Amino acid sequence: MSNERKIYKPGPVRGFPEWLPEERLIEQKWFDNIRRVFESYGFCNIETPSVEELDVLAAKGEVDKEIYVIERLHKDENDKKEARLALHFDQTVPMARYVAMNFNNLVFPFKRYQMQRVWRGERPQMGRMREFYQCDIDVINVDNLPISFDAEVASMMYEVLESLNIGRVRLRISNRKILMGYLSSLSNVDNDYIVKVLASVDKYEKQGEEFVRNSIIELGLRLEYGKEIATEILNLVNTKDISLIESKNDLMKEGIDELSFVLKNLEHLKDNVIADLSIVRGLDYYTGTVYETQLLDVPEFTGSVCSGGRYDDLAGSYINKHLPGVGISLGFSRLFDVIKQKRPDLMGLDDKSPKGPAHVMMMVPENETDRPLAHDTARQLRKRGINVEMYHAPKKFGDQLKYASKKNIPYVWVVRDGKHEVKDMNAQTQTQADPQTWTPPDRKVLDEVA
Amino acid sequence: MSNERKIYKPGPVRGFPEWLPEERLIEQKWFDNIRRVFESYGFCNIETPSVEELDVLAAKGEVDKEIYVIERLHKDENDKKEARLALHFDQTVPMARYVAMNFNNLVFPFKRYQMQRVWRGERPQMGRMREFYQCDIDVINVDNLPISFDAEVASMMYEVLESLNIGRVRLRISNRKILMGYLSSLSNVDNDYIVKVLASVDKYEKQGEEFVRNSIIELGLRLEYGKEIATEILNLVNTKDISLIESKNDLMKEGIDELSFVLKNLEHLKDNVIADLSIVRGLDYYTGTVYETQLLDVPEFTGSVCSGGRYDDLAGSYINKHLPGVGISLGFSRLFDVIKQKRPDLMGLDDKSPKGPAHVMMMVPENETDRPLAHDTARQLRKRGINVEMYHAPKKFGDQLKYASKKNIPYVWVVRDGKHEVKDMNAQTQTQADPQTWTPPDRKVLDEVA
Repeated sequence: MSNERKIYKPGPVRGFPEWLPEERLIEQKWFDNIRRVFESYGFCNIETPSVEELDVLAAKGEVDKEIYVIERLHKDENDKKEARLALHFDQTVPMARYVAMNFNNLVFPFKRYQMQRVWRGERPQMGRMREFYQCDIDVINVDNLPISFDAEVASMMYEVLESLNIGRVRLRISNRKILMGYLSSLSNVDNDYIVKVLASVDKYEKQGEEFVRNSIIELGLRLEYGKEIATEILNLVNTKDISLIESKNDLMKEGIDELSFVLKNLEHLKDNVIADLSIVRGLDYYTGTVYETQLLDVPEFTGSVCSGGRYDDLAGSYINKHLPGVGISLGFSRLFDVIKQKRPDLMGLDDKSPKGPAHVMMMVPENETDRPLAHDTARQLRKRGINVEMYHAPKKFGDQLKYASKKNIPYVWVVRDGKHEVKDMNAQTQTQADPQTWTPPDRKVLDEVA
Repeated sequence: MSNERKIYKPGPVRGFPEWLPEERLIEQKWFDNIRRVFESYGFCNIETPSVEELDVLAAKGEVDKEIYVIERLHKDENDKKEARLALHFDQTVPMARYVAMNFNNLVFPFKRYQMQRVWRGERPQMGRMREFYQCDIDVINVDNLPISFDAEVASMMYEVLESLNIGRVRLRISNRKILMGYLSSLSNVDNDYIVKVLASVDKYEKQGEEFVRNSIIELGLRLEYGKEIATEILNLVNTKDISLIESKNDLMKEGIDELSFVLKNLEHLKDNVIADLSIVRGLDYYTGTVYETQLLDVPEFTGSVCSGGRYDDLAGSYINKHLPGVGISLGFSRLFDVIKQKRPDLMGLDDKSPKGPAHVMMMVPENETDRPLAHDTARQLRKRGINVEMYHAPKKFGDQLKYASKKNIPYVWVVRDGKHEVKDMNAQTQTQADPQTWTPPDRKVLDEVA
């Protein structure tokens, strides 16, 4: 090998994570679990292109997400005539555009899940990624969307988090109409006050009750509200039992009724679901139900692992129809990364983690006449759903075992003089086996490994 | 709804395809099949970021692929200090970089599959996409890579194509060393002649034998070769039975031995695998085995659906190691798109195609007291692996059926007065059912629909 060749030694690109094979195997298992739950509710999958026209991403007004635009390295005059393209920063805008564009070919209510990468050009920092997966579910309907979906999507996401084995999960639900209704019942109130109080309540968890109280008091000065209004608002926000809330107007009543309905429909999840009126969600398009989710056993994960809510009309920027929706988004990659780093035990990531999907490694027999049988046996086992990695050279028994051991393959198949034996790499036992009937003694291996 | 709002009506972005839910369902099934085959051979999956540093993509010299660069819309001075990023145009370069970067954490021979999107900023035209999926398998080893892998990856790709049910497939294999060896045995030959003859043979299929003969004759003029050398080359290229080839030197003998070994190891695929010495593959990094694949029953698909070969040293631009590899790449999206458009029958795409993964739609009972049982039954069936879509409102029987029919859901579950019945939407029959034991009478539905 010549030493003259030029070597360009690349380092990791910050904010664009990638995993080792043993980590990716677990990531795949997570995606499989999530998909299984979504599909068990009959939600269909869609994928949209990675890019949208910049004008589509900006159709709802100012774009405050850090957008990546793309352009051809060898761009020419023709490129200037085409629409500017940018990588999508979430899956909600592309879905809205997709629904508008394919309106006549979709069945409504349109229930879809989407698990793709999204891109945000933010400064990379702890837990912030520039490219990451999101797993979203949304239901969109024409004109009216039954409130039952607000319960169904919450139930689905709860089940998803449960399937990932990351400890106890708490789903916190509110309905914006309650606080909105209450605030709009105040005398002399104006929109500016309402918006700012909501923004202030949104900081409840991070900044604490006193911070919120003080800022509400301050916001009320202009309208000559006394401190007691801040107290009333905080009493409302702190209410755990929503049946105790007295409604001041129709909007507030609607919010209470909707939230009660949703909670009642989630009774099977017991006290893992709670009403929490401090949940507001910053995004301004939510109009009713809002969700946040906490991981109780992973304090290292700060903030909400999946969040969402109901919006009155999302695709309206792209089509002259009224299309209300409700959805929840799981920030997949951040969750995966935090668990991987802080609680690898929860995902079963350790020195024993398989580095590939093989259940069995087939030895290449040292005796040449045995080799065709080894190949046939590998094919036969594969047809029966067993993943069989063929070793690549007729090396010594010990050398071949070493490879299986390095990759943490649980079983090694040995063909010798036309006879079959299987070595259990954990138990270090070797027993006769019939290729037509053998399955891993611990049947779970088939599911667990791959 | 206000008519004043601004509507931005987006059209499709050319070259960036997206599918309807019923099409995506089939695409998912294809991906599942492909993954199942790859994993049955123990190949692990990796994913790399969508972007690489521009210098990584360009490390092997000139970049003739049309690359998309990305940059932040709101870029600032800091961005200029960072490496320029570009979307990857294949999965081979990112894999090579990944192997170099993670060298100490991988087990060799490293066998991986990768199924991601790639981007090429070419002018969109029939069959050309700017964003598409590739499904790649490669094996990389340190210093030496056993020839058995050249057979294994071919066998895997054949099995993949077979699993997609797209008719008869023909795998054509050659070994570049044969023609290279022959050409280098000619008197007074130089490298320029060899390279140009290879490039000429590469046009055999598209331009025909006479074109190749004439261009080889012309290339030989400079070296004072007569027409008989063109005839000899074409005789070699046309040889079907490689055991008849007489080797002129070590390189040629090596090529013949390797190709014989590979063909012998693919004997279980019978005459679906042939030697075809006209296969050269344009890319200059192949050094031995080369593959192309034809779909015999889909003449609309021109060219090779999956291709690849062996390269002496691929990751050498990024690490001071000798890393030979062999791999094949399936151009997934183009294949899917052609079959979808030209032979939808082959993928079972018609008016009856399910528009989602649901096996069963659960009716919402008109009678309110039956509703909790309907919900419980849906949960019970889901736990047993049956995908159950819950209808969303207590509408009339006929309205609910209409929805199931529009979505082509095969079964509808009816709870009435505490009793269970299932309606078979195709047979239009309705029978009693036990939620603890019922499975779709045609058991295949479970596999076929989702």
